[in-house]
Amino acid sequence: MKLGIVTGTVVSTRKVENVTGLKLLVVSLLNADLADTGKTVVCTDTVNAGAGDLVLLCASSSARMTDATRSAATDNTIVGIVDAIDAAHTPLYTRTGGA
Amino acid sequence: MKLGIVTGTVVSTRKVENVTGLKLLVVSLLNADLADTGKTVVCTDTVNAGAGDLVLLCASSSARMTDATRSAATDNTIVGIVDAIDAAHTPLYTRTGGA
Amino acid sequence: MKLGIVTGTVVSTRKVENVTGLKLLVVSLLNADLADTGKTVVCTDTVNAGAGDLVLLCASSSARMTDATRSAATDNTIVGIVDAIDAAHTPLYTRTGGA
Amino acid sequence: MKLGIVTGTVVSTRKVENVTGLKLLVVSLLNADLADTGKTVVCTDTVNAGAGDLVLLCASSSARMTDATRSAATDNTIVGIVDAIDAAHTPLYTRTGGA
Amino acid sequence: MKLGIVTGTVVSTRKVENVTGLKLLVVSLLNADLADTGKTVVCTDTVNAGAGDLVLLCASSSARMTDATRSAATDNTIVGIVDAIDAAHTPLYTRTGGA
Repeated sequence: MKLGIVTGTVVSTRKVENVTGLKLLVVSLLNADLADTGKTVVCTDTVNAGAGDLVLLCASSSARMTDATRSAATDNTIVGIVDAIDAAHTPLYTRTGGA
Repeated sequence: MKLGIVTGTVVSTRKVENVTGLKLLVVSLLNADLADTGKTVVCTDTVNAGAGDLVLLCASSSARMTDATRSAATDNTIVGIVDAIDAAHTPLYTRTGGA
Repeated sequence: MKLGIVTGTVVSTRKVENVTGLKLLVVSLLNADLADTGKTVVCTDTVNAGAGDLVLLCASSSARMTDATRSAATDNTIVGIVDAIDAAHTPLYTRTGGA
Repeated sequence: MKLGIVTGTVVSTRKVENVTGLKLLVVSLLNADLADTGKTVVCTDTVNAGAGDLVLLCASSSARMTDATRSAATDNTIVGIVDAIDAAHTPLYTRTGGA
Repeated sequence: MKLGIVTGTVVSTRKVENVTGLKLLVVSLLNADLADTGKTVVCTDTVNAGAGDLVLLCASSSARMTDATRSAATDNTIVGIVDAIDAAHTPLYTRTGGA
């Protein structure tokens, strides 16, 4: 999986039917220091993530390994919201606030 | 999925039979600021996109998760036309004109 | 799919049995301006392409979505020969000669 | 597979159900000289790896080819801990300590 | 497929069971001029390749399309040893020696 931060939402009315009803979020990919890599993907969301959330992304055929996306034309799905990252026992990130 | 802009059309008469009848569009991949990344892919199209449309691309085995491409030799399919992108509640892009 | 130009042929006698009999071509990947990206792949060929042909490449599991490659250990297959590319109604490429 | 070094742990309470119970490790990808490539992935772990371990990563659909991850939404799994790498009969790496 | 040169061997005793018994080789990826790209992968081997061999690599789900790797957690397999590469009828590489 990749680490990313949710930066926005995509609105698309003309799309493949099996993607209808799925939330489409814009996510910037991050490196190990949680700095922006400059790469961007649009993800289907299965965990109700929102702008500013640090998330785990699952790509390729594994993006369809959730109940919500099993038959969807998606190649990238948000499969988790990150609470904390411990870098060899030192906290690198701790989530604050959020739902 | 990736964001891209349709820039042209590919004509190919000698091709794998299961791709026959599918529209093949040239798409430039864009980053989060909708700037050209310099990367180009040829996509099968399932939503009747045209030149200048901002589109969502679905790659690898997920490119075959549409009725039109299920048994086609394609690894990249346009699965949606983008109407708008909201970057944390600020509109980053709004589609104008088009069919 | 990606755009590429066929630059050569690979000879391999000791190989996985299900690849035996398939033509293996060296292909340089091209960008939207049909300039060399510096990336090279070896592809199975299903459309009888030859050196100098501008071709469409299909990767990953989709490389096996042809009659010739369905059970082959290939992750990149030439699925079409490009006749022409129209960049928003302006011809960017037109094939000349060839079989 | 890729070579990587485990650098930390990800804590995520709100995640896809089929990933629950799987350890999620942060891994930095290494090149042939075992230098950091700057790329980072989060992996499910099936061999009980820990911080500092040199590991083998398996990506895409192959990340699900283990008993623990077969139905999990993961695209990268640690499938082995490296004991040693011999570069053409010269030891390039030998594991010391560890469990 | 990609072109690569075998540079070493990986020893891993603690690994996923379905990879046990498979040879794991370190391979440097090459470009069209057979120069090192700086990218390294660890491959399962099905053709008994050795250090110094120029090989064909098959990635992602296609890495499992051999009898030896069909149920293995591998995303990259050596599927052929290259005897020669002809660049538009000019020999670019000819294998010498070897088993």
